[in-house]
Amino acid sequence: MNLSSLKKLLEELYEQKLEPQQALKQLKSWPYEDLGFAQIDHHRSLRKGFPEVIYCEGKSKEQVCQIAERILMAGSSVLATRAAPEVYDQMKLIDGRAQYHPLARTVTIEVHSERQGTRGRVLIVTAGTSDIPVAEEALVTAQVLGSTVERLYDVGVAGIHRLLDKKDQLMEARVIVVVAGMDGALASVVGGLVDKPVIAVPTSVGYGASFGGLAALLTMLNSCATGTATVNIDNGFGAGYLAHKINLLGEFPIE
Amino acid sequence: MNLSSLKKLLEELYEQKLEPQQALKQLKSWPYEDLGFAQIDHHRSLRKGFPEVIYCEGKSKEQVCQIAERILMAGSSVLATRAAPEVYDQMKLIDGRAQYHPLARTVTIEVHSERQGTRGRVLIVTAGTSDIPVAEEALVTAQVLGSTVERLYDVGVAGIHRLLDKKDQLMEARVIVVVAGMDGALASVVGGLVDKPVIAVPTSVGYGASFGGLAALLTMLNSCATGTATVNIDNGFGAGYLAHKINLLGEFPIE
Amino acid sequence: MNLSSLKKLLEELYEQKLEPQQALKQLKSWPYEDLGFAQIDHHRSLRKGFPEVIYCEGKSKEQVCQIAERILMAGSSVLATRAAPEVYDQMKLIDGRAQYHPLARTVTIEVHSERQGTRGRVLIVTAGTSDIPVAEEALVTAQVLGSTVERLYDVGVAGIHRLLDKKDQLMEARVIVVVAGMDGALASVVGGLVDKPVIAVPTSVGYGASFGGLAALLTMLNSCATGTATVNIDNGFGAGYLAHKINLLGEFPIE
Amino acid sequence: MNLSSLKKLLEELYEQKLEPQQALKQLKSWPYEDLGFAQIDHHRSLRKGFPEVIYCEGKSKEQVCQIAERILMAGSSVLATRAAPEVYDQMKLIDGRAQYHPLARTVTIEVHSERQGTRGRVLIVTAGTSDIPVAEEALVTAQVLGSTVERLYDVGVAGIHRLLDKKDQLMEARVIVVVAGMDGALASVVGGLVDKPVIAVPTSVGYGASFGGLAALLTMLNSCATGTATVNIDNGFGAGYLAHKINLLGEFPIE
Amino acid sequence: MNLSSLKKLLEELYEQKLEPQQALKQLKSWPYEDLGFAQIDHHRSLRKGFPEVIYCEGKSKEQVCQIAERILMAGSSVLATRAAPEVYDQMKLIDGRAQYHPLARTVTIEVHSERQGTRGRVLIVTAGTSDIPVAEEALVTAQVLGSTVERLYDVGVAGIHRLLDKKDQLMEARVIVVVAGMDGALASVVGGLVDKPVIAVPTSVGYGASFGGLAALLTMLNSCATGTATVNIDNGFGAGYLAHKINLLGEFPIE
Amino acid sequence: MNLSSLKKLLEELYEQKLEPQQALKQLKSWPYEDLGFAQIDHHRSLRKGFPEVIYCEGKSKEQVCQIAERILMAGSSVLATRAAPEVYDQMKLIDGRAQYHPLARTVTIEVHSERQGTRGRVLIVTAGTSDIPVAEEALVTAQVLGSTVERLYDVGVAGIHRLLDKKDQLMEARVIVVVAGMDGALASVVGGLVDKPVIAVPTSVGYGASFGGLAALLTMLNSCATGTATVNIDNGFGAGYLAHKINLLGEFPIE
Amino acid sequence: MNLSSLKKLLEELYEQKLEPQQALKQLKSWPYEDLGFAQIDHHRSLRKGFPEVIYCEGKSKEQVCQIAERILMAGSSVLATRAAPEVYDQMKLIDGRAQYHPLARTVTIEVHSERQGTRGRVLIVTAGTSDIPVAEEALVTAQVLGSTVERLYDVGVAGIHRLLDKKDQLMEARVIVVVAGMDGALASVVGGLVDKPVIAVPTSVGYGASFGGLAALLTMLNSCATGTATVNIDNGFGAGYLAHKINLLGEFPIE
Amino acid sequence: MNLSSLKKLLEELYEQKLEPQQALKQLKSWPYEDLGFAQIDHHRSLRKGFPEVIYCEGKSKEQVCQIAERILMAGSSVLATRAAPEVYDQMKLIDGRAQYHPLARTVTIEVHSERQGTRGRVLIVTAGTSDIPVAEEALVTAQVLGSTVERLYDVGVAGIHRLLDKKDQLMEARVIVVVAGMDGALASVVGGLVDKPVIAVPTSVGYGASFGGLAALLTMLNSCATGTATVNIDNGFGAGYLAHKINLLGEFPIE
Repeated sequence: MNLSSLKKLLEELYEQKLEPQQALKQLKSWPYEDLGFAQIDHHRSLRKGFPEVIYCEGKSKEQVCQIAERILMAGSSVLATRAAPEVYDQMKLIDGRAQYHPLARTVTIEVHSERQGTRGRVLIVTAGTSDIPVAEEALVTAQVLGSTVERLYDVGVAGIHRLLDKKDQLMEARVIVVVAGMDGALASVVGGLVDKPVIAVPTSVGYGASFGGLAALLTMLNSCATGTATVNIDNGFGAGYLAHKINLLGEFPIE
Repeated sequence: MNLSSLKKLLEELYEQKLEPQQALKQLKSWPYEDLGFAQIDHHRSLRKGFPEVIYCEGKSKEQVCQIAERILMAGSSVLATRAAPEVYDQMKLIDGRAQYHPLARTVTIEVHSERQGTRGRVLIVTAGTSDIPVAEEALVTAQVLGSTVERLYDVGVAGIHRLLDKKDQLMEARVIVVVAGMDGALASVVGGLVDKPVIAVPTSVGYGASFGGLAALLTMLNSCATGTATVNIDNGFGAGYLAHKINLLGEFPIE
Repeated sequence: MNLSSLKKLLEELYEQKLEPQQALKQLKSWPYEDLGFAQIDHHRSLRKGFPEVIYCEGKSKEQVCQIAERILMAGSSVLATRAAPEVYDQMKLIDGRAQYHPLARTVTIEVHSERQGTRGRVLIVTAGTSDIPVAEEALVTAQVLGSTVERLYDVGVAGIHRLLDKKDQLMEARVIVVVAGMDGALASVVGGLVDKPVIAVPTSVGYGASFGGLAALLTMLNSCATGTATVNIDNGFGAGYLAHKINLLGEFPIE
Repeated sequence: MNLSSLKKLLEELYEQKLEPQQALKQLKSWPYEDLGFAQIDHHRSLRKGFPEVIYCEGKSKEQVCQIAERILMAGSSVLATRAAPEVYDQMKLIDGRAQYHPLARTVTIEVHSERQGTRGRVLIVTAGTSDIPVAEEALVTAQVLGSTVERLYDVGVAGIHRLLDKKDQLMEARVIVVVAGMDGALASVVGGLVDKPVIAVPTSVGYGASFGGLAALLTMLNSCATGTATVNIDNGFGAGYLAHKINLLGEFPIE
Repeated sequence: MNLSSLKKLLEELYEQKLEPQQALKQLKSWPYEDLGFAQIDHHRSLRKGFPEVIYCEGKSKEQVCQIAERILMAGSSVLATRAAPEVYDQMKLIDGRAQYHPLARTVTIEVHSERQGTRGRVLIVTAGTSDIPVAEEALVTAQVLGSTVERLYDVGVAGIHRLLDKKDQLMEARVIVVVAGMDGALASVVGGLVDKPVIAVPTSVGYGASFGGLAALLTMLNSCATGTATVNIDNGFGAGYLAHKINLLGEFPIE
Repeated sequence: MNLSSLKKLLEELYEQKLEPQQALKQLKSWPYEDLGFAQIDHHRSLRKGFPEVIYCEGKSKEQVCQIAERILMAGSSVLATRAAPEVYDQMKLIDGRAQYHPLARTVTIEVHSERQGTRGRVLIVTAGTSDIPVAEEALVTAQVLGSTVERLYDVGVAGIHRLLDKKDQLMEARVIVVVAGMDGALASVVGGLVDKPVIAVPTSVGYGASFGGLAALLTMLNSCATGTATVNIDNGFGAGYLAHKINLLGEFPIE
Repeated sequence: MNLSSLKKLLEELYEQKLEPQQALKQLKSWPYEDLGFAQIDHHRSLRKGFPEVIYCEGKSKEQVCQIAERILMAGSSVLATRAAPEVYDQMKLIDGRAQYHPLARTVTIEVHSERQGTRGRVLIVTAGTSDIPVAEEALVTAQVLGSTVERLYDVGVAGIHRLLDKKDQLMEARVIVVVAGMDGALASVVGGLVDKPVIAVPTSVGYGASFGGLAALLTMLNSCATGTATVNIDNGFGAGYLAHKINLLGEFPIE
Repeated sequence: MNLSSLKKLLEELYEQKLEPQQALKQLKSWPYEDLGFAQIDHHRSLRKGFPEVIYCEGKSKEQVCQIAERILMAGSSVLATRAAPEVYDQMKLIDGRAQYHPLARTVTIEVHSERQGTRGRVLIVTAGTSDIPVAEEALVTAQVLGSTVERLYDVGVAGIHRLLDKKDQLMEARVIVVVAGMDGALASVVGGLVDKPVIAVPTSVGYGASFGGLAALLTMLNSCATGTATVNIDNGFGAGYLAHKINLLGEFPIE
């Protein structure tokens, strides 16, 4: 309900094409749906460019599936994150197109059969192999939203030539997601090398004074490399989502 | 020194247009300059799209001016952040074009006389009036880099109609920077309303359990709104820089 | 033992209707009962308006039941929080009226058969579906104490129209309990919309830098919305209890 | 703009008593005022029962006065917290009714000449004498809003008989605000004695491991006394505001 | 090896009753025993008044038993804390006098058959029933060292009359150990009532912002009651040990 | 007002030697005095063995002096801690016996002219010279309360022979107060050497990761030496007070 | 690829012994190997003196073995830390020389049959028996790298004579690794006794306010003993590695 | 007093060249000197290879000078850290050889006129220009102890080519001290490039979530580069001291 549609509604009312009761209803009826335990936000698809994403932790597989069904009925694709294999098993019964990404722990149901990625690329970089699950969550998220995504894994700063050797790949990406635990230093190094937006994702990989990812988080927030911002610890989804949004800006001709 | 120039160099060597000693020198000579106390990174202008920015805290005004002079000699514009008025007084003597932005505490010297902003707009939003200095640092940064920037100040969630009333302005921006201290909740609300990248800047505004901005920082990192990332507390510069970079992606035809 | 009863006791003593030994005993005998491992505070019912509540964590089901029996013998209703299903099974054997509220993980035994709620309403609001268990603990607590309670679940700020649409329901409540994890921003938004007391309950829902609810707690403590106070992380019981107390103030004619 | 006024507006439009352009304007014009650096929320007076309060920290005395003038023009009383004496000197020039409360560091300008307090009382309790400034901020706030307020200062738990002796005063209050630094234990003891809502205010009074009030804050959040909620460290204003709101509920006959 | 024995040794050497090699050996041979994985400190019995105590966490039951056997061989009693039932089963086989204290999770083997407690009493006080295991560890420790110990459990400040009623018992103890989790406020109240040393033991009982006992720890460290000191979270053993030492000072005539 | 005096009062009432009104008054009148901003606890002298101590921080010198005068009128000695020299200047005017201890930042006014210390000694040990002010606060406190006190300063573990050489002095004290900042390791070493109670005082001496004394505090709380308890950071007063109390236990024949 | 080999390459190119394409390839080909999930850094053996070490946590045993095989193929020894017994079982199948060190939880495969330790010794010291696993990780690491290593276990400061008695052993080592949890005080005491580099390893041994090793970490960082540096909590590997490197410096004649 | 001198003493006693009283005195007299407020540890020069260093913070300039005089009398050089210019002015009066290093804030008095540095070099590296004061403290310390020291300043990871270009200098040092604030990432990158011991010094340079150097400290502790250990925040002295010790090991032929 934007300004122009509001204008139109008011004009129709003035011209008596519409009765006050109808207008009132329209003004009040927001496009969401009440499942009792959840208010599904169908409007989000319009507002944010993608329907509501299902964060599975703390929800029963039945709840997840109920929400998924409503999203499918509204004609949208489904993305469920932090999904255990059992959630996938149940989702598979609802819709045969359901796919499980075990490393990323996500289930996707894509309703538009052939996806064609963006020309611009999102590059997902990890410091170590233990950071891969978080990276894959970012990857699946950006991909299901429509971005073309590339991987560059295990190029942490302890062996910096592995990263420097891939400088071209870094320079050619439109957005870079850097996923790193422990000292989180990779984000600063990548941020210093490229002129594209860098999204830093601290992971809870580490021990002792890594304090569940706090060390990497602080490193990234304090990065002296320009053009970098940080998301929550282990939040691959959030990074993938933002990366796609930024990628899209470069995809289309000037607005 | 990118791949193609390396190729060219190697071919010239092969064709004996160049001697090994010269090649060696070229391969070694990176474009930075050693002032003893600082290594000025002229190469950054190529690599990152803007020359090195001078962070004034912890530097004497003499040091700041020395660095500024070298940047100017290299033909680049100067941006000095966290600059006290005395720094500006000294800078003015070096270059009459120096301008001081007192709220933002920055000095700028722009070498290209007429700036023409981008078509896409960066919108800087604050929760309160006390957040304005950080917001202005972001604004000056994005502006001097070339972005068109708009302000939307004092629209915190305690009176949410002030924000909702400006929904159009929010929707029309290409990137949004949200600056908020205390509870930092504004970032989540803005992030939920728009489909554009949101950069959240926690500020140290607050008292008691705000712990110098920690509360706002954690709020923003934990935001459930998609498409949001966070920079360091009070880091207006970092947010403005990243906002400009993202804005640029939408400015130019597809690469 | 208040001032008037003390006066009466002293007068009876003066008039020799009472002997010093008896008076001494009365002055000393407080109405609590010693089970060895617990001092049951029957006096609380007088002093606080409701008997002692049993917090089950760290107590064996036998201990919980022993305490419950004594409370029932004193003619009071029982409220047991953080109760596992096995506690309920045991309680059921003691008193057939025992009821289990699985989401809220509480057992109640209400001794006054027909409850009639207050005219004023306590409204329990949650940001997400994962916050519901804490919300239900608040709901059961306020209800068993005598309040009329309503639910408004899954209206977090990431889709703020879901909340704004329920503005009437918000305005009509006498007290509002806002239950939110992750960024905890909902409390500030609700607090800014209404003119009634708001009790904020941070939950441990979230991951990474939510640090077990710390992020939401700090957000709520730093809320710039007036008329809001905060209870401990996941403390649905405490919020429900306080909400009822406040609700009662509005129920009765002026004292 | 509530449901009934919206209905009325729509009906007038239908009946062509109003033109679409006028309706649009009314729907858009929210009652706030833009000073550039601040959006004064006149609507708050309707929505929250009191106009916007001016938090002076981080604002120049000129800014504070400009905001105060607009509030006065809108016919509302002014409450300015964390105000230095110089702010008062300036405010005095604007309006002769301005009063300074040095302990509470607040300025008030009351537009309705004779205030008549509520019948119910808000009781402000402090643990020590160093907690008094925060207590006075709560007191002035609740008083200017219309509550009758009483003081009970320096009754900390290290000499608990001082508190127990004032049990009647505690029992007779409608709401109690407990202000305590250091160990913050007073809130738990008061909360255990009374059956009225208790608002706990941790203060930054203390040293060493009090960590600026963190110790008292955690004590209060973890209080095992029922009916207690906590506000931010040193937030006397917030406590006074909420206390008044709760007090009001008991003032008027049942809604 | 104290000053007088050193003198004696040197004199014997001077008088050639001893050869240098023997003297050297004596000077070097400290009374401890090397088990490879542990250096058993038999000297501690002399130095500290009680042999080494076995902290079982992180040791295998075999290791615990090996250490116990050596202590028994040296004629000392055994105290093993944080002992699982299986440790006890194994200890029982070594020495039939072994006793298990399940609440306290300790095993004791007392070699001097009849213990006669001190005249002065150590009083162990808890806030709730969940604090009892830590309290019992303190009790068993002080008892096995020789103190007479009394219990006063479940007298937390939320029902302060339970505590005040036992004021005589509090006043008559020589040392008081206060064990409390959650808000830890009991230590301050007890410390304000008595004129005897109070040892405060924070426990990890609580949830949310109790942060594993941190809240109670900070409360106790910040207590405004004089004569109070604090031990580590859940460190019943440390409190019992120190309480006994202080108790002993009052037992014997002036040194 | 203890049990026996209560009995006596009740008997007098029964025998009509006393009227109910008088009895009521006696039962209510606790021996404290209300200065408005402070409730002076004269009863503390009876209850705790020493009158209220004046903590000067956050009090004006006038307030401090008013409290001091009332304490003197009640015939008690005065101890004022954290006192600036100006407080002393003012105190001197009230009572010529006032003494200033500049290192300890305390003022004392001793009303009983000749003090005779205890036979048992309190030993105050510091790790470095920067810890001396806190140590002196402990020393003055224990001394004014009546203990004989000795100093052993600058014997930190970085040169452990300085400490080991003073082993006799350590062994001969009845109570030891260990004052240490930075790593706080001295408390563990002393605690391992002696069989007397050790009170550990962390100081805020240090930099970087000492976090204002937190490092030393944690070290002391985690000490593996038995017989040690800890007070708040920089709380020399608290340590001196407790040390005296423990010292007293050893002074008098068995109760 | 060092300076001299670069010179040589460029000269060969100049002399046309090499074609540009070949040179380009050589300049680009760094000696690492891409397994998809891991980039094995064979170059590390040259650069750092030992091949990449496999940190097993978060890797499947298949992944560990794949990496191990490649390292073996490159002719290097294998060191796998934080290895569960199942990892060893699998490794054993790959190479019969695999050895498991259960306390240290490491697997080693040494390819050079007879190891001859250094003349200088690394001494590994622990405070308690629970610190031994971390100490053994350090020991195995330093040993497999080629150092001669000695143990000195369970010599914590609570019984300091155990340590002082071994002063010669301390003095004779070339590097000392001190492993301690709880109060971590041993590092300061050892650091004060010797004139050799001391590497401090905090362990997560402890409870309550040890906060998973944080207390020991802070103690060690704040040590006033000179010549000490600290590694991450429980990082035995890191300490052993650094100890070996330092030890090597003393092994060879002057460079 | 080592083993051989003890043997000799005992033999002299046996041979009656020495009387017991003399032997006792020798065994007791440790070489330190008591100034009342400080125990100067002259023995340290023997034990640790350098006399006690004076940490000036918290000491008066008179105290510093008194300690310096005693050290000079004992024939040792003086190193005073964290020294204000006024301390230098006073020191200059005592000994004309005193030198002030303003950036490092240290005073040195070298008693051995011509210093000849080590062959091996300590390299001090900083990330930014604001880290230089801490770096200079390390430099002066290592130099006065006898090491040859080199600087490599302002080579942070945001422009990594500045560092890579100096790879030879890095490779040729015997020990490297890396000084960095903000994200502290430089330590990891340097640690990954070289095969020499790296000592990481976090600095308090930064703002917001750098939390006074905590971010850099955690980064360094969590570094995945092998061969790195960390000292306290801003502890340039500690790093310089340890670097010298390690450097010395490589200087002398095998022990």
